[in-house]
Amino acid sequence: MRILISNDDGYLAPGINALAEALSTVADIVVVAPDSNRSGASNSLSLDRPLSVSKAANGFYFVNGTPTDCVHIALTGMLDARPDLVVSGINNGQNMGDDTLYSGTVAAATEAYLFGIPAIAFSQVHGGWAEVESAARVARDIVLRRFEMLESPFLLNVNIPNLPYEQIGPLVPTRLGRRHQSEPVIRGQDPRGREIFWIGAPGACRDAGEGTDFHATSKGCVSVTPLQVDLTHRDQLDLLRRGLG
Amino acid sequence: MRILISNDDGYLAPGINALAEALSTVADIVVVAPDSNRSGASNSLSLDRPLSVSKAANGFYFVNGTPTDCVHIALTGMLDARPDLVVSGINNGQNMGDDTLYSGTVAAATEAYLFGIPAIAFSQVHGGWAEVESAARVARDIVLRRFEMLESPFLLNVNIPNLPYEQIGPLVPTRLGRRHQSEPVIRGQDPRGREIFWIGAPGACRDAGEGTDFHATSKGCVSVTPLQVDLTHRDQLDLLRRGLG
Amino acid sequence: MRILISNDDGYLAPGINALAEALSTVADIVVVAPDSNRSGASNSLSLDRPLSVSKAANGFYFVNGTPTDCVHIALTGMLDARPDLVVSGINNGQNMGDDTLYSGTVAAATEAYLFGIPAIAFSQVHGGWAEVESAARVARDIVLRRFEMLESPFLLNVNIPNLPYEQIGPLVPTRLGRRHQSEPVIRGQDPRGREIFWIGAPGACRDAGEGTDFHATSKGCVSVTPLQVDLTHRDQLDLLRRGLG
Amino acid sequence: MRILISNDDGYLAPGINALAEALSTVADIVVVAPDSNRSGASNSLSLDRPLSVSKAANGFYFVNGTPTDCVHIALTGMLDARPDLVVSGINNGQNMGDDTLYSGTVAAATEAYLFGIPAIAFSQVHGGWAEVESAARVARDIVLRRFEMLESPFLLNVNIPNLPYEQIGPLVPTRLGRRHQSEPVIRGQDPRGREIFWIGAPGACRDAGEGTDFHATSKGCVSVTPLQVDLTHRDQLDLLRRGLG
Repeated sequence: MRILISNDDGYLAPGINALAEALSTVADIVVVAPDSNRSGASNSLSLDRPLSVSKAANGFYFVNGTPTDCVHIALTGMLDARPDLVVSGINNGQNMGDDTLYSGTVAAATEAYLFGIPAIAFSQVHGGWAEVESAARVARDIVLRRFEMLESPFLLNVNIPNLPYEQIGPLVPTRLGRRHQSEPVIRGQDPRGREIFWIGAPGACRDAGEGTDFHATSKGCVSVTPLQVDLTHRDQLDLLRRGLG
Repeated sequence: MRILISNDDGYLAPGINALAEALSTVADIVVVAPDSNRSGASNSLSLDRPLSVSKAANGFYFVNGTPTDCVHIALTGMLDARPDLVVSGINNGQNMGDDTLYSGTVAAATEAYLFGIPAIAFSQVHGGWAEVESAARVARDIVLRRFEMLESPFLLNVNIPNLPYEQIGPLVPTRLGRRHQSEPVIRGQDPRGREIFWIGAPGACRDAGEGTDFHATSKGCVSVTPLQVDLTHRDQLDLLRRGLG
Repeated sequence: MRILISNDDGYLAPGINALAEALSTVADIVVVAPDSNRSGASNSLSLDRPLSVSKAANGFYFVNGTPTDCVHIALTGMLDARPDLVVSGINNGQNMGDDTLYSGTVAAATEAYLFGIPAIAFSQVHGGWAEVESAARVARDIVLRRFEMLESPFLLNVNIPNLPYEQIGPLVPTRLGRRHQSEPVIRGQDPRGREIFWIGAPGACRDAGEGTDFHATSKGCVSVTPLQVDLTHRDQLDLLRRGLG
Repeated sequence: MRILISNDDGYLAPGINALAEALSTVADIVVVAPDSNRSGASNSLSLDRPLSVSKAANGFYFVNGTPTDCVHIALTGMLDARPDLVVSGINNGQNMGDDTLYSGTVAAATEAYLFGIPAIAFSQVHGGWAEVESAARVARDIVLRRFEMLESPFLLNVNIPNLPYEQIGPLVPTRLGRRHQSEPVIRGQDPRGREIFWIGAPGACRDAGEGTDFHATSKGCVSVTPLQVDLTHRDQLDLLRRGLG
């Protein structure tokens, strides 16, 4: 099995190192990841400047671009062989509910899925890298399951509690939960007296009931949410057809 | 009616100027847009640095951030009153099919929708601003329809042919089409002899059949696609439940 | 006379607009300036990505690069004819003493000087654009003097008090003053609890005595400091030769 | 002896690693360097956003800012004790003649000098890291000389040939040479058909005669140029005083 690994925390992050080490025992791996932290990059693609690729001492490739850039150039010409699977992460903190829209980790996996390749995004529920080795073992377990019950390609969003391996609960198939609105923007002044605005904290959970990713991880389980990329709102499309007809 | 206007081409782009002018005759408008071109920004949100807001001579506010940043800070504390509608654009080129995932124009509207506010993203099918005044008239027509047949909030993705106003066809409710894979990455050398990679062109249409945004605009009509933000793949979720159960 | 105008506050700044308007009455002007604020850019040159040039509605060219980039590409291929003079500014605040090392405004003029073209950098003593029209009139007066007593090319750094035109004192030839060390870095936390560091305020003046730019402007006069670019420390070079010999 | 080490190629570059290793045998060192490559940053200082400092596994600190930012925050509050010396490099390629104005490596050393601390910038004559270990040995030799014949603080710009240690010639005190104008800008098109401009190559040497850095290194010697930061042009200041008097 050939696996391409990327992330959004940069090629030096503990999460991608743990993931690469765990997967290297079961697959041929290649790492192509951003040169620095690109958290919150979402599906950004760099169209107005060229990218460069460098190889680090440990064999990882790093790119002066976004997570989506990394997977895109790996799949459209940089790699000699098409990977069987693309994994992204392990991210430094959760990507659940609406937050998946902003996530560079999920975006890297999504880019592969758009190219017809199965892909899995891995995140730890809490930031700070506690128990990242456990999370990497869970990730390897998940990769080895192969998910043959799903049509290929599939796109899975996995969130793993920061627990010792033995205390982590089973995989739970979930839907994305929903959050309330974000906290207000935080106004301040910089040291030169200019008004500045910091984006506020994410909102509390609004839909964190049974069946959601928020719920599963709160019980110590590993949340596995299959994703798709068609944003069309089918119900409203029917209403619109009738209304405009 | 109070309307917040943003875009991803920057506050100086002809598209946002035409849109603001057209809407100012029918609503109270406020413009909060990026200070420079942020095409391809997707839903990027700036979490690692503060943002600043400036006011231009024409009354537009501009922000040193992404489209999502602009709408986010406008709605969470910068504006005194909550807008009734948020519009984004008019974008310099189409946002159809899978491309909507990468689009900063769509992301700006999506951010409003996540805050519970109806939102519409407008794009012209071809870049270069031909017939941008016609597109702005179409946008005003669409805003005035109010879409009461849809539950609120709604999120509409509108693509408008570059035609004189009289030649533009009717609104057609559509689903997002699909593209084939992108063209390969373009390798080159910079003048210092270093290898560089440019992201290649988007792929040709794969699903551009009747009912899609690609199809409607190819017939000279205005494509209107209602969007949602839940990326959960319901069918695969059922399969996964059975397979892991 | 053909004059190339640039700055570091961006092509939309009031300072460059006032300067362009004042000089257009006495010369053929062309403006090539950064697309956004690049204060503090110093002599940065963009070597790892290509630049693009756009033309604004008012005829100004803007570049997605630094002040030095702007002047560099204007002089090495973008402009058809070599300018007789390059001016930079009017900057939103002073560039005196050691601060000239960090200044993008001075750097734009320096780039021209390195290409053998006379150049003048203009700054207002205080930021905020008070009396910017007066400063533009002073700048025009200075340009018209032509400085034939200096060998060509020359590089002049001009700082202008924010006063009504009639109250501005005469031109005073000055040397650069010196500042004390900067104020300490300002530690803080961002809203996510991460430690952040803001660069502190510039230090107070250490050498602001008679003959310096600080002294002249404090008396309401226009400071004119001729600059050169050879950083070699001649006295220490002699000591070093003796010491290592 | 306490030594602060920075550079402009980023904290992971082979040059700073070799330098840190060589100096750690003779001094207490601390490394504070940019998180990624900032070549060409010149004296840029980040005033519009806060900086963050992280610690790598090897004990190096890295900052999301410029070389000047790194030295500035290290000296104004981040470090507990004031270093006795600040060194910068080893840079991936020469910094001689006019190029010193653009160099982030020289700027990092200059920032220390402005704070009253002796500082040395080290560069290899050719890029690509050939013989970087030799260069690091030369750098250690130079640091151990202490330069007591110079008044303190001093600012030295050192360029080292890419030769085996035994073949490297003696230290030669030099002045900065001069280059001819840069090569023309290189026009091209990006893959989307937009015109782009690449900064051209540096010009050939104009003043590379005996006594210059260009000359010394061409003979296989180590060029040592003492620098200062007062850009005032004394000769022209006299002319200007007479002319305007």
